[in-house]
Amino acid sequence: MSEALATMSEETRRGTMTVDDLARQLADLRRQVENIKPGADDRVSIIVFSGDLDKVLAAFVIATGAVAMGMEAVMFFTFWGTPVLRDAKKSVGGKDLMGKMFGFMLPKGRNAIKLSKMNMGGMGTSMMKSLMKKKNVASLDQMLQMAGELGVKIYICEMSMNLMGFQQGEFIDYPNLEYAGVAAFLEQAKNSKVQLFI
Amino acid sequence: MSEALATMSEETRRGTMTVDDLARQLADLRRQVENIKPGADDRVSIIVFSGDLDKVLAAFVIATGAVAMGMEAVMFFTFWGTPVLRDAKKSVGGKDLMGKMFGFMLPKGRNAIKLSKMNMGGMGTSMMKSLMKKKNVASLDQMLQMAGELGVKIYICEMSMNLMGFQQGEFIDYPNLEYAGVAAFLEQAKNSKVQLFI
Amino acid sequence: MSEALATMSEETRRGTMTVDDLARQLADLRRQVENIKPGADDRVSIIVFSGDLDKVLAAFVIATGAVAMGMEAVMFFTFWGTPVLRDAKKSVGGKDLMGKMFGFMLPKGRNAIKLSKMNMGGMGTSMMKSLMKKKNVASLDQMLQMAGELGVKIYICEMSMNLMGFQQGEFIDYPNLEYAGVAAFLEQAKNSKVQLFI
Repeated sequence: MSEALATMSEETRRGTMTVDDLARQLADLRRQVENIKPGADDRVSIIVFSGDLDKVLAAFVIATGAVAMGMEAVMFFTFWGTPVLRDAKKSVGGKDLMGKMFGFMLPKGRNAIKLSKMNMGGMGTSMMKSLMKKKNVASLDQMLQMAGELGVKIYICEMSMNLMGFQQGEFIDYPNLEYAGVAAFLEQAKNSKVQLFI
Repeated sequence: MSEALATMSEETRRGTMTVDDLARQLADLRRQVENIKPGADDRVSIIVFSGDLDKVLAAFVIATGAVAMGMEAVMFFTFWGTPVLRDAKKSVGGKDLMGKMFGFMLPKGRNAIKLSKMNMGGMGTSMMKSLMKKKNVASLDQMLQMAGELGVKIYICEMSMNLMGFQQGEFIDYPNLEYAGVAAFLEQAKNSKVQLFI
Repeated sequence: MSEALATMSEETRRGTMTVDDLARQLADLRRQVENIKPGADDRVSIIVFSGDLDKVLAAFVIATGAVAMGMEAVMFFTFWGTPVLRDAKKSVGGKDLMGKMFGFMLPKGRNAIKLSKMNMGGMGTSMMKSLMKKKNVASLDQMLQMAGELGVKIYICEMSMNLMGFQQGEFIDYPNLEYAGVAAFLEQAKNSKVQLFI
């Protein structure tokens, strides 16, 4: 009897499995593996709904912090968050009356937004800004630049643009900007480890 | 030597495994597979805490958008979100003084809620509603009907009902409505791909 | 021919696989298993950004509810949430002017915070508190104690402390408290089943 066969007989004697048993078990395990729902991508997806200075700052701290940890970050600016990304130096024509009114009433860009609390006619917001400078906390300007350099992806909500009469020509220059609907964002968010509505 | 044995010997010579080796490795892999934490269900779970028109609209846009993408959607209306689902045409008796006061002070249903910002004594809210109509953005009424038809599940928070003195007879008719505690919602949320607090 | 070999021949005749085939398939499956993105830990991670009474209560209801369901819970108090955890009976010296101003203007602890809506000069908040008592809903004091006993982990955001001039000596005694940055929180959040920004 050859050595190989001797080994096999020994195994068979010890009550071990045949090749066919193994094949069946392997097929079972394969089915089990194929039915495992996979976990999410290493990504943070943030809906920036609020246009308040404090909340927008928080959103950027989280997004840039996530990228610094090796994750991806995606931000979806919608509703009151939309005008935050307007460029104060850009203006476009051809708006209807409602569009002009919204354009006038909503803050023109990130330097015009206020704290959600303790704004106190702008005094609280100014105080917070000077305090951030003194304490070496990055300003919204710096945050936005950092986010751009780190590859944070920004979506601007098309439904909000349509509603508020904003045009693409009004928004800031940003390396990784896209105009998109909620479906495009949900597609990213549903496979993200973290999703936040801010 | 038979052909089968010849093949085995050939394999053994090439340093391949015996049936027993394979069986051991298969058992290892099975243990590994059984220890994999499975990913979440294809579902969006939203806590609607705020009763503001803009935020409730956003919640419905996300919920119906998710279902349109083939996901499930669950909404948990709590705190200020609870009175949004009252039916303005229904009224119930037997409330104590506090219940009557809350019933009077809180908005009676979805058509009585206001924007979180720029409400301007109701003018901003009216403006937004007429703008939504003009721009063909679905109203809250239409959203709610769509959500019902798409099978979006709605929970109303029992603790909030208890606190604010609301009774089941005050709420809207909705095909997929349940009165539940936070545990029932968390049970859904913890196995969802997306969870949001709005 | 030995019995073992007879079995093998029989299997080979039935078109089944050789040990080498199986070994190759097992290696393939192992690679597949190793590439599965694992799901998240059974944990709820909550960012408590808002310092409003209603929202802080909601955060604790969710955190303690999650632990009651066998999950872990982590709360990260940041921005307006930070002063909520100050101990009204503790005071520290050595603050600069800005630190003193913030210390004065921000609510001194959890018993000084207000509802996000219907505060009505404090009347709404008082009404809600007495209502909670009457309806046997746990107060914030009770929630915090329960959270401590249940092992809910609390982080206080170091960036907010720095910005608002808070010192560690001002905060409450809590069994599971840590002063940390956003990275420490994200590390927990990204492997949690549920994440919320409240």
